[in-house]
Amino acid sequence: MPQSPIRKLVPFAEQAVKNGKSIYYLNIGQPDIKTPKIALQAVKDSKIDTLAYSRSEGSEIYRQKISDYYKKHDIDVSHEDIIVTTGGSEALLFAFGSVMDVEDEVIIPEPFYANYNGFSIASGVKVVPIISKIEDNFALPPIEEFEKLITPKTKAILICNPGNPTGYLYSKQEIQKLAAIVKKHDLFLLADEVYREFVYDGNTHYSIMQEEGLEDYAIMIDSVSKRYSMCGARIGCLVSKNKDVIQTALKFAQARLSPPTLAQIASEAALETPQSYFDAVIDEYVERRNTLITELQKIEGVKVAKPKGAFYCIAELPIKNSDHFAQWLLEDFELNGETIMVAPAGGFYSTPGAGLNQIRIAYVLKKESLIKAVNILKEALKVYKD
Amino acid sequence: MPQSPIRKLVPFAEQAVKNGKSIYYLNIGQPDIKTPKIALQAVKDSKIDTLAYSRSEGSEIYRQKISDYYKKHDIDVSHEDIIVTTGGSEALLFAFGSVMDVEDEVIIPEPFYANYNGFSIASGVKVVPIISKIEDNFALPPIEEFEKLITPKTKAILICNPGNPTGYLYSKQEIQKLAAIVKKHDLFLLADEVYREFVYDGNTHYSIMQEEGLEDYAIMIDSVSKRYSMCGARIGCLVSKNKDVIQTALKFAQARLSPPTLAQIASEAALETPQSYFDAVIDEYVERRNTLITELQKIEGVKVAKPKGAFYCIAELPIKNSDHFAQWLLEDFELNGETIMVAPAGGFYSTPGAGLNQIRIAYVLKKESLIKAVNILKEALKVYKD
Repeated sequence: MPQSPIRKLVPFAEQAVKNGKSIYYLNIGQPDIKTPKIALQAVKDSKIDTLAYSRSEGSEIYRQKISDYYKKHDIDVSHEDIIVTTGGSEALLFAFGSVMDVEDEVIIPEPFYANYNGFSIASGVKVVPIISKIEDNFALPPIEEFEKLITPKTKAILICNPGNPTGYLYSKQEIQKLAAIVKKHDLFLLADEVYREFVYDGNTHYSIMQEEGLEDYAIMIDSVSKRYSMCGARIGCLVSKNKDVIQTALKFAQARLSPPTLAQIASEAALETPQSYFDAVIDEYVERRNTLITELQKIEGVKVAKPKGAFYCIAELPIKNSDHFAQWLLEDFELNGETIMVAPAGGFYSTPGAGLNQIRIAYVLKKESLIKAVNILKEALKVYKD
Repeated sequence: MPQSPIRKLVPFAEQAVKNGKSIYYLNIGQPDIKTPKIALQAVKDSKIDTLAYSRSEGSEIYRQKISDYYKKHDIDVSHEDIIVTTGGSEALLFAFGSVMDVEDEVIIPEPFYANYNGFSIASGVKVVPIISKIEDNFALPPIEEFEKLITPKTKAILICNPGNPTGYLYSKQEIQKLAAIVKKHDLFLLADEVYREFVYDGNTHYSIMQEEGLEDYAIMIDSVSKRYSMCGARIGCLVSKNKDVIQTALKFAQARLSPPTLAQIASEAALETPQSYFDAVIDEYVERRNTLITELQKIEGVKVAKPKGAFYCIAELPIKNSDHFAQWLLEDFELNGETIMVAPAGGFYSTPGAGLNQIRIAYVLKKESLIKAVNILKEALKVYKD
């Protein structure tokens, strides 16, 4: 299993810190937002005296509450359509394992979340990338392009909506185009919708689970990690109305016994988080995004897609190799003792050589830090030589 | 992935309860022992306000404390030899993924923990069983028998020590025999040692990590689940002095981001559990085991291996098919409104037809309940017809 380009940078970041540099971490989607108090308090208030296994598919009451949450989002699923997992990561692993055999293929618009590679390797499945372009804001590639890639081994199409690392939000029409193609070719449509709440500018998220007639084809991946800023809980879920998929995923769930019990207590309580929490968080992210995009657009030669959701954006820089650039930023550059850590975008592409002049920026820092960080980028680009 | 024979029984147990029967659950290793207070209190005292990812390999301080724990058990490993996992389950999955490719083979003495099948299927690996016999108390099969099974595809031998479902404790000599064979044939020796503390009658546990010269071959699987009666924490670890193994396992760990944070807090605190806790627990299990074995031996036609560790035993019954018997106990039998749920042992064998007249009993109930439960078994056998 290859190491991701971000991971490769970690020793350089550690060394930079040892050398006394301060780093703005734009490389990872670990929000600085506080977890809702109600979630953490529920764990403290718990009366458990034996920390026992939960049901492999998650407790019935928690799954019922998740189904209530979905109903509020116009997604009509019952607790029987839900398997609670150890993070969205495990939901994805179960989904891959349930719908694909070794050497089967899954088509994924790239750039895509780098860990999809890890899960595909762990499942023995082949990722077939289909390129989406920064010029198009990373919109869905034309359906004809998908059809060119479909082979007898193709079993699924996977999207992330809103997208990590692109921030792109698929429209209802785009979801319907995908629905048509998976039905035509009898494929599964997997959607990683963990950033559902993070949509901006008055846009609405349209889930694959809302699309009529897609019941047998749709598998949704979800997680509490970003929604409630509780990445460390490791609670997610797999959702499908296809009973065979749920039955198979349940067997994977049973093999690993149960999702973590304490984190399920926190996650169940988190469902009571008031709307005011999300309103404040969304306002904060919109301001951060606007700041980031405005500042980036001021830099000569930088091209940036405007994200409509999540908290990432891809920026194209006037450089040849962002792996090298990102390392150079840590090793050889500083502005008043400060530098930045960015994610080289090559790791989000499966096509060799693609995205080498791009980076992903996670706007998970406060506005003032983002302004300083982009200024560091601007000054760095002035002196950097490929 | 096939469903385990225990899981198949669950609907029958649920129905029996609905019909008003009380059930003694002898089928699952969920101890009724209380989790050390210190572990649960640490979570309540935690000052976390953002529940963030931990390091993929587990926090450095927790791994350092785990290494201190091992040193107390004469196992000399550093924190760099340890990757914290989401339960022993994930440690096993990482170990399989790290040392084997699809279609490779792992030799496992049977009967073995049924979920090993699930992990081998998830990893695309083939389990090659080697039979151990109730007549020998499930001791290590002769080394010649192992050698007959080794092919170019064999990559590892996996043992569980002390054993689930057998309760067998491998002697130092047996571990040394295994060490010799893995070195001779260049295989990995994987040992699931999650029941390390649960050894009885003055016996001592000998870890594969204590065996000199085995450093490059040994991979230990561990878990807090049974040790501190915190199965629901989902914290375990993979331990090896082989740097390549750790490097590869780390990539699997990175793909799933991190083990659960709250449970790591509880597990770190659990390491401070006083010896008096274990002494009381071990005394309790010895009493339960003695009660169980004594009562079972009173039943005509029942053969039982005396466990030296863990909290399971295999009993051979004068019946033909324990799958059917276990279901019949739930559906059609009761003694004063009570019945028992047992694990048919067929699921612990990979050889077709093996173990069909055996059951596994987990002695995780109080002494009085065990006496009643065995009495139910005795009365049931009087009237049961295959």
